[in-house]
Amino acid sequence: MDLPLPQGFRFAGIHSGIRSDPGRRDLALIVSTEPAAAAGVFTQNRVCAAPVRVSRERVPSQNVRGIVVCSGNANACTGEQGLRDAQRMTAVAAEELGCSANQVLVCSTGIIGRPLPMAQVEAGIRKAFPLLRSDQASFVDAAHAILTTDTRIKLAGRLIRLGDKEVRLAGMAKGAAMIGPNMATMLAFVATDAQVNPQNLQHILKGAVDASFNCISVEGHMSTNDTVLLLANGVSGARADAGNALELFAAAVRESCAELARAIIDDAEGITHLITIDVEGARTAGEARQIARTIAESALVKTAIFGADPNWGRIVSAAGYSGVAFAESDLSLWLNGTLLYERGTPVPFDAASVSAQMKNQREIHLRLVLALGSARCRFWTSDLSYEYIRLNADYTT
Amino acid sequence: MDLPLPQGFRFAGIHSGIRSDPGRRDLALIVSTEPAAAAGVFTQNRVCAAPVRVSRERVPSQNVRGIVVCSGNANACTGEQGLRDAQRMTAVAAEELGCSANQVLVCSTGIIGRPLPMAQVEAGIRKAFPLLRSDQASFVDAAHAILTTDTRIKLAGRLIRLGDKEVRLAGMAKGAAMIGPNMATMLAFVATDAQVNPQNLQHILKGAVDASFNCISVEGHMSTNDTVLLLANGVSGARADAGNALELFAAAVRESCAELARAIIDDAEGITHLITIDVEGARTAGEARQIARTIAESALVKTAIFGADPNWGRIVSAAGYSGVAFAESDLSLWLNGTLLYERGTPVPFDAASVSAQMKNQREIHLRLVLALGSARCRFWTSDLSYEYIRLNADYTT
Repeated sequence: MDLPLPQGFRFAGIHSGIRSDPGRRDLALIVSTEPAAAAGVFTQNRVCAAPVRVSRERVPSQNVRGIVVCSGNANACTGEQGLRDAQRMTAVAAEELGCSANQVLVCSTGIIGRPLPMAQVEAGIRKAFPLLRSDQASFVDAAHAILTTDTRIKLAGRLIRLGDKEVRLAGMAKGAAMIGPNMATMLAFVATDAQVNPQNLQHILKGAVDASFNCISVEGHMSTNDTVLLLANGVSGARADAGNALELFAAAVRESCAELARAIIDDAEGITHLITIDVEGARTAGEARQIARTIAESALVKTAIFGADPNWGRIVSAAGYSGVAFAESDLSLWLNGTLLYERGTPVPFDAASVSAQMKNQREIHLRLVLALGSARCRFWTSDLSYEYIRLNADYTT
Repeated sequence: MDLPLPQGFRFAGIHSGIRSDPGRRDLALIVSTEPAAAAGVFTQNRVCAAPVRVSRERVPSQNVRGIVVCSGNANACTGEQGLRDAQRMTAVAAEELGCSANQVLVCSTGIIGRPLPMAQVEAGIRKAFPLLRSDQASFVDAAHAILTTDTRIKLAGRLIRLGDKEVRLAGMAKGAAMIGPNMATMLAFVATDAQVNPQNLQHILKGAVDASFNCISVEGHMSTNDTVLLLANGVSGARADAGNALELFAAAVRESCAELARAIIDDAEGITHLITIDVEGARTAGEARQIARTIAESALVKTAIFGADPNWGRIVSAAGYSGVAFAESDLSLWLNGTLLYERGTPVPFDAASVSAQMKNQREIHLRLVLALGSARCRFWTSDLSYEYIRLNADYTT
C-alpha cells in the first residue's frame, strides 16, 4: 500500500557503518526542499541523550530543513563529547543543504554510553545526500534505518482535502523495544505539506502525542531518547491554521500518531496479546489515562493475559491503586465484551469460555466504565511473556 | 532460634476448613490477656477488602484484646455481605474473649471475590480459642496459618532493656506473593509487652512501616488487603512513651519490621536475586524512596539482574524518569561495590567479572549516590524471572 507522501520532502536510509552488519541501514535523512515549520515532543527523562538536548532547543521553528537520524548508537550518557557529536551531525547535514546547523534536527537510538563513531557518521551523512528521493522506496529505506530491535517498520499516512487542495501526511516510527545495554527508544517522524504556523503545529503535535505515544507502555521504562518530530513545509499551499482546516489537519495528525503508536505495541518484545484498554466515565482524561496506565503496567495483569486468565481481581485492584479517587461501586469491567465486574460486584461468567477465547485471539479488549464523569482514554499495551524475559535477561554487557 | 515472646499474649493457628487441604492451617488468633494499645497501617488501595474497612476504624485504640486472621479467602470485592462477615468474625472472637466486638481486629488473605465460608470460619474461631498458648510452637502455628503462596514463615523479634525492665517484641509476616485470582497480601503482626500510649504507638508503627514494608516491591501491584498491626499490652511494666525508652522501643519496632519486610522479598515469587537498593545524598527521604522504588519496579532492571547483566544504563535511566529533579552530573552508581557510573559519566569496568559475580551470589547491592543533600532510603526488591511468569500466567480462573 502506497503512503500519501507529502510534496517537497525527500528521504534516504543507508548503511553508514555504525552497525557492523553491512546489510543493516543505520542512517536516515528526511529533508524538505523548503524551510518547514517544525514541532517536537521529547522524553521527560532527566537522563536524556545529547541529540534530545540539541533538537529540543530548536523547536518549535519555522525554518527547519531536515532531520538526521542514526540507529545502533543512542549517543546517551556520552557527556560533552556526545553533545559536540550531535551538533556536528546537524552541521554536516547543514553544509550539504546550504543552511545553518540550527535548521537541522537530530535523533539517535541504540546502545547507551558509547561515543558515536563520528568518521562513519559524517561520511554516512555525505553519502546519503545524493541518494535523497521523494519516492516510496526511499521513505521505506529511511523507516528501516531508524529501527533497532523492531522486527518490522511502522508507517502511517493520511490524505485530506482542505478546501480545493490536497494535503498529504506520512509518518514512520520505531518501537520501544529494549534490549541489552542499548535501551532503545521510541522515535517517530511525521512530514506533511500542509501550511501551519509553528505554534499551532506544536500544539497539534502535543495533543496528538498525548493521545497516542503517551498512551502506550511496554514496561513503563521511559527512554533517554524518545522523540516525536512533525515537519510541515506548506508546499501543498493549503493553510491549516484555523477553523475547519485546522480541525481536519489535527485529526489527521492524531490518527497517524495513534496508528504508529499501536504499531509499536503490536511489535513489542515478547508480545503474544495486544491489549487495548478503554477507560470511560472518568472525571478527566488525565485520570482516565492514569487508571489505564496503571493497569497497563501491572505485571500481574500482563502475566494473567499472557496466561489467558480473565483475572478481573488484578485489573480492578490495579485501578484501585492508580491514585484516582473512586468507590468500588463506581466501577464496572468488561473483558472482550463479557461483563466481569459490575458497579463493585463480581458477575458470574463462564471463565473457561472467556479463557479459551483469550487464548485464541491476539487482541484483548479491556473496558472499564466509571460513574464519575464523561472523560475517557484509550491505551495500548502488550502482555508479559517468557520471551520478554529471554530477550531482556539473556544478555551480558 | 527462639523468639522473645512478649508476656501476656497467646497464639493459635489451626485448620478451619477454609482451605480444602486438611494439613494446611488457615485461621490464626493473637490474643492479649490485658487490653492492649493497638496501631495499624493499611493498604491505600481504593478497592480494599472488608476486614481492612473494619479494622481501620478500630485503631489506634487502647483496649484491643485480639486479632483474628483467616487465609485462603481475602474477603475482598464481596460487598455488604463481606462487611457483615468481617464484623461477625470479630463478634465471635469477642464472645469467646468476653469483650466487645470492636476490641477485636480482623484480617483476611487469599482468593478475591468469593464469600467467606462462614460456617467453617465461625467454628474455626471457637475451636482455636481453647488451643491458645504462649509458647513458641503456638506462635509458629499462627505464623503458618496466615501464609498463602509463601514458601516459609517470616519471623522477627527483639528483647530490649528499658531501665530495669525487659521488653519483648515478636512479629510475623506473610508475603506479597500473588497468584491466581487470589491476589495475596502483605500482612504483618507485631506484639509487645511494652507500655505505650496508642498515639505514640501509631506514630512509631507508621515510621517503621515507611522504612520497611513501604520500601519493598515485587511488582508494584498494591494489594486490596495489606495490613500491619502492632499491639502493646504493657504487661512488662516498662513504659516506652518518652525519651530514651521511646527511642529504644521505636528502634526495636523499626528493626523488626525491616527484618520481616526483607524476609518477604527473600521469598518473593520466582526470586533468584535479592536486590538491596541504597539511595543516598537525596534532598529528602521521600525523594530517595521515589528513585529507589522506580528502579525496583523497572522490568528492564529486574530482568537484567536476573540475567546477571550489570546494565547500568537501565538503572540510571530509571532514576532519570522517577520524577525527582537532578542533573546527570549529580549521580553516581555502584553495583556490588564496583563503580559503574560516576557523576554522569560511565566508568570502564570489567563487565565479565562483575557479571560472573552477579551470577554466583544471591544478593545484589545497588548504591546510588546523589549530590543533592543527605537524605537516604534502603529499598528491597526481587528480580524478574521465568518462574515469576510461570507462577502468574499458567493459571486459569
